[in-house]
Amino acid sequence: MKRLAIIAGKGPLPGEVAMAAIAQGHEVLILPIEGQADADFSGYQTVPIRLGAINKTRSIMLEHGIQTLVMVGKVVWPSMAALRPDFDGMKLLGKMITKGDDNALRHVAAYFAEKGIEIIAVDIFLPDRKMPSGLIVGLAPDGDGEAAISLGMAVLDALGAHDVGQSIIVQNGRVIAIEAAEGSDEMIARAKPLLDAESGVGCLVKMRKTAQDTRLDMPVMGCVTIEAAAKAGLSLLAIEADTVLLADDLAAIKAACVAANMTLIGINRSTAK
Amino acid sequence: MKRLAIIAGKGPLPGEVAMAAIAQGHEVLILPIEGQADADFSGYQTVPIRLGAINKTRSIMLEHGIQTLVMVGKVVWPSMAALRPDFDGMKLLGKMITKGDDNALRHVAAYFAEKGIEIIAVDIFLPDRKMPSGLIVGLAPDGDGEAAISLGMAVLDALGAHDVGQSIIVQNGRVIAIEAAEGSDEMIARAKPLLDAESGVGCLVKMRKTAQDTRLDMPVMGCVTIEAAAKAGLSLLAIEADTVLLADDLAAIKAACVAANMTLIGINRSTAK
Repeated sequence: MKRLAIIAGKGPLPGEVAMAAIAQGHEVLILPIEGQADADFSGYQTVPIRLGAINKTRSIMLEHGIQTLVMVGKVVWPSMAALRPDFDGMKLLGKMITKGDDNALRHVAAYFAEKGIEIIAVDIFLPDRKMPSGLIVGLAPDGDGEAAISLGMAVLDALGAHDVGQSIIVQNGRVIAIEAAEGSDEMIARAKPLLDAESGVGCLVKMRKTAQDTRLDMPVMGCVTIEAAAKAGLSLLAIEADTVLLADDLAAIKAACVAANMTLIGINRSTAK
Repeated sequence: MKRLAIIAGKGPLPGEVAMAAIAQGHEVLILPIEGQADADFSGYQTVPIRLGAINKTRSIMLEHGIQTLVMVGKVVWPSMAALRPDFDGMKLLGKMITKGDDNALRHVAAYFAEKGIEIIAVDIFLPDRKMPSGLIVGLAPDGDGEAAISLGMAVLDALGAHDVGQSIIVQNGRVIAIEAAEGSDEMIARAKPLLDAESGVGCLVKMRKTAQDTRLDMPVMGCVTIEAAAKAGLSLLAIEADTVLLADDLAAIKAACVAANMTLIGINRSTAK
């Protein structure tokens, strides 16, 4: 029996990972992040944790003989005041000064690794949930749509080295919105008044940041995103294959796209110019 | 007497340009853009224009013997439906497919140039309104502030080639928000909940896009921006010297910074890495 800890953020994915991990023979300890995790973990062994309590979290894992850790579910980056870091948390946060989100997570990962706790990528437990490659559903993009995808990929490529830019909205050769700290959902919502219904296909491109470590932070896309995109006036979603995780199963994703009249295509970074 | 047309967008700058141009010996025709220009142009010769009516606008200028044109004031990019382009407008808009804002303006400039109408940069008329270089007001940025400026400049440099990214907000090594089609003011407003009051200096960096033609679209910063930045929790404004125009005179800008406890610094692209 391998003991696996699951640090659980918002949404149903942590529960699905727990089920899959048990099926794969792991003994699972769930660490729901207070104020973030919202799935039902009854029936599982759980110890709630506070996001800023880094040494407490490490101690809990060591007490439970954990050697492997997976982090899954959406985590909203809180303010320092809300974070109330403990002693080691404060030391780590000191290191994070002038660092982006990914660097922050890398420091946390290194801190756990000091005591032999290894972080693994969540997609090991959800192999069917990786975004597939190629046209998934909807009409194949025309020249306008392909140009939008290319521009979006080029801009995200230019940004990725700076630990920013997981998604972007493009229409008619214009960059309408770029995601920074606000998250994809908020970016999609604010793009609505900036998109022009008569001016060509509105396209969302979502990719892993160039330097992003998917063990620490895997980009996720699901039915909620599809519905939000349709509401904002988008009709083309270009999602990086293999590196973006689907929050819902592919049948549900396809059904949501059909209902929203949305084209979904899995893109590959290597094909970008 | 040189005849000068002023295509006037929103705000008081078009009126100030008109006064300065007359003092410099120009005979001025103001073309207020309907639904955008809001200054009082009584006492000037005016012919209101519609943004989409490109050949009509060119005809008006030719009828009035205009050979020189300046475009000044904020213009909100309307939807195609609101634009109602005329025949030449439609032809030009056809060319703009898959082009950004700057490319669109370049096509318009070329269309006017066909008939001998030259577009000149607005700062010729407002030489005192160019953002100066160096520390203008407030405490000199510390290491944290300097790091924020460097990161902001680096990301804007990476974006500029794609006709996007005139301004950015950075705090503690994180890119909080990037301006795309929404404009600086809206970006500043939405950064408020993403900034952390306890986590180091919040910094706005505003620069000309690398490929931006300042004859066609000059970035502008004024007291409104300073007040909005203070409200959002920013305390450092790094504005590109020479290429950004001040919407208010320097004394008023300085007073607004002092009132808002804001540091204002003029940066130079050449000093960026």
